[in-house]
Amino acid sequence: MTATSATESLKQHRQNFPSLANKAYFNFGGQGPMPRMALEAIYKAYEYTQNQGPFSAQVNNWLMQESALTREALARELGTRAKNITLTENVTAGCNIVLWGIDWQEGDRILITDCEHPGVIGAVKEIARRFKVKVTTCPIAATLNRGNPSVVIEQHLHPDTRLFIMSHLLWNTGQVLPLAEIIELCRNYKRNRLVQILVDAAQSAGSLPLNLDELGVDFYAFTGHKWMCGPAGVGGLYVSSPALETLSPTFIGWRGVVVDTSTGMPTDWQSDGRRFELATSAYQLYVGLRAALAVHHKWGDAEARYQQTRQNGQYLWQGLSILPNIHCLRNSPPEAGIISFQLTGNIGHKQLVQALEQQGFFLRTLANPDCIRACVHYFTLPSEMDQLIKVLGSL
Amino acid sequence: MTATSATESLKQHRQNFPSLANKAYFNFGGQGPMPRMALEAIYKAYEYTQNQGPFSAQVNNWLMQESALTREALARELGTRAKNITLTENVTAGCNIVLWGIDWQEGDRILITDCEHPGVIGAVKEIARRFKVKVTTCPIAATLNRGNPSVVIEQHLHPDTRLFIMSHLLWNTGQVLPLAEIIELCRNYKRNRLVQILVDAAQSAGSLPLNLDELGVDFYAFTGHKWMCGPAGVGGLYVSSPALETLSPTFIGWRGVVVDTSTGMPTDWQSDGRRFELATSAYQLYVGLRAALAVHHKWGDAEARYQQTRQNGQYLWQGLSILPNIHCLRNSPPEAGIISFQLTGNIGHKQLVQALEQQGFFLRTLANPDCIRACVHYFTLPSEMDQLIKVLGSL
Repeated sequence: MTATSATESLKQHRQNFPSLANKAYFNFGGQGPMPRMALEAIYKAYEYTQNQGPFSAQVNNWLMQESALTREALARELGTRAKNITLTENVTAGCNIVLWGIDWQEGDRILITDCEHPGVIGAVKEIARRFKVKVTTCPIAATLNRGNPSVVIEQHLHPDTRLFIMSHLLWNTGQVLPLAEIIELCRNYKRNRLVQILVDAAQSAGSLPLNLDELGVDFYAFTGHKWMCGPAGVGGLYVSSPALETLSPTFIGWRGVVVDTSTGMPTDWQSDGRRFELATSAYQLYVGLRAALAVHHKWGDAEARYQQTRQNGQYLWQGLSILPNIHCLRNSPPEAGIISFQLTGNIGHKQLVQALEQQGFFLRTLANPDCIRACVHYFTLPSEMDQLIKVLGSL
Repeated sequence: MTATSATESLKQHRQNFPSLANKAYFNFGGQGPMPRMALEAIYKAYEYTQNQGPFSAQVNNWLMQESALTREALARELGTRAKNITLTENVTAGCNIVLWGIDWQEGDRILITDCEHPGVIGAVKEIARRFKVKVTTCPIAATLNRGNPSVVIEQHLHPDTRLFIMSHLLWNTGQVLPLAEIIELCRNYKRNRLVQILVDAAQSAGSLPLNLDELGVDFYAFTGHKWMCGPAGVGGLYVSSPALETLSPTFIGWRGVVVDTSTGMPTDWQSDGRRFELATSAYQLYVGLRAALAVHHKWGDAEARYQQTRQNGQYLWQGLSILPNIHCLRNSPPEAGIISFQLTGNIGHKQLVQALEQQGFFLRTLANPDCIRACVHYFTLPSEMDQLIKVLGSL
């Protein structure tokens, strides 16, 4: 395909995302635009369930089936099987399921990177308080441009470390952590007992190609509303088959238990990832997430989408790097679609982001490090990036 | 208003609920039909957020505002203030927030009625296992037709009881428990320390008139998708002001914490019910729930709706009671809209409910007691009840 016909074909594909039409969008790490088919599928699901129920045997069958299909679809995205998938409301719920499901003992340790999201940090702090668990933070932010995050992580493991918490793709600097290598070193660190790994996959699910069963990660918490472009309010948690045996359900509801049909009493957990699911959700949104995934598949497989995202990331990074008034946090091309930068002049980051939004450029600021974040997806247009580079260069 | 014009006005009001058109609906306790305005409000909210974002300063302001408006609207429904409301995904989430937020000590006791939902029972069992808490079940199911539930509850309180769990309107038999009286007796039971009360309000919120601040209940977990007729996936939890001081957040996310704007680190909990909220939800559905509440208000206030629901419940109970092949669990008229009954003949309950659904009558079976449940709302038509009585009488 020539460059021109590739751009034409991309423009065609972008017709699926009506909300991209009136703007230059760089907030995929916050939320992805929903394809028209996803919204239509949701509306259709509402019409169907209202018409055939809303509460009826037919609709109950439908929602069990849709839930199963959604776990299967997400399992395919992540390189695993449906039994390892729990449907959740968001990434944070998945992280909490893991954090509260471990049988913490006084003196146990959690190792967490210094690049995690405040919500997860808040949960870890409360775990530490309640169970007298010690928390160590390992400084991997500083490895963005020099040094090796694996080495830093290894240095901070302790015989009492039971859980290591990291993001696969860092939400603040865009660094991709070498997950396979980190899993390997945690597995080999057999002082006392197993170090399990919880990955905050808010930025990596839907943006990196994944094969979780092969990787051997324990827990991978993700959402459908960012890089997958599904509706807000649907996410999931991957729990490996060995970890499924050790993790206890905490927040518990009818979806997670097996109920004796004569007494109506819960007698056991569901045998698979459903044991961590709670109760009634907006099932119609599951259909929307699957429709969004189908749209991406029409464009290319996970590897092809990642390569294009990465290429776009490198293009934008390149363009921003040469601007005299912009300091990109990375001094080498990014490995994925997140580019964070600072202004070297007198304009405040918040002020600039607000002004850009008025002009149709959607970006966000971050507190730590104090910067602006631009995200590109596989379907970001070169012309959008050129416009952003131009407007930032003309400040 | 004459009976005829009242029926005409009701038929007019029912036009708001398109899904009622093709059926005789008796599953309000499972899920309420959504008014057309609620669905339209949701679709409009999706169009707006997609068009102006989906992730942008403008949409972020919008969703903060919509969340605040929704807490306020729910607070008005329940007779409290927005600061006492936490938005949740469902009733079960609200119950779990309470169950896991108490600083359990070994030997503490939970008292729970024998009419609670399996999901809640499952959570209580896990609390008992993890914290070595004792669970006592008090047999109030037997007080449906004789005896006094308050007396039974009082008999089962123990000096170590810290939490009493009950439903306000029992999902299985339709009995309304005397909540004010039960709160009074728990408050007066001052052997050791305070007995707090967690109410599963799945069936009472949106069906009974409520004034929670006046009642003085500690925790009231509810959902918007049953009697309020909102979308599935939005519920809430009431935590009284004194209880807010003692309950710790468990599942924790960015919505519950205050984040230092320079470091990006969580420094405190939100001052109000938001501290128990987690992370990204389907905010569009909040708008739908408020639209549903507005439709009910157009018909009448909570007291008027309850009186009509109760009158309908009594009408249906009356009609069923006189059928020779039907045994109503209650032998006196119901206090609200739930009527449970058994067939005295050879037809199985499941078989009948399936057959009825084919004929356009929507009911459900329950396991314990083994029965069929019919729910009526304030907008149920006398003709629908007559048809149900007729079809059941002709078996």
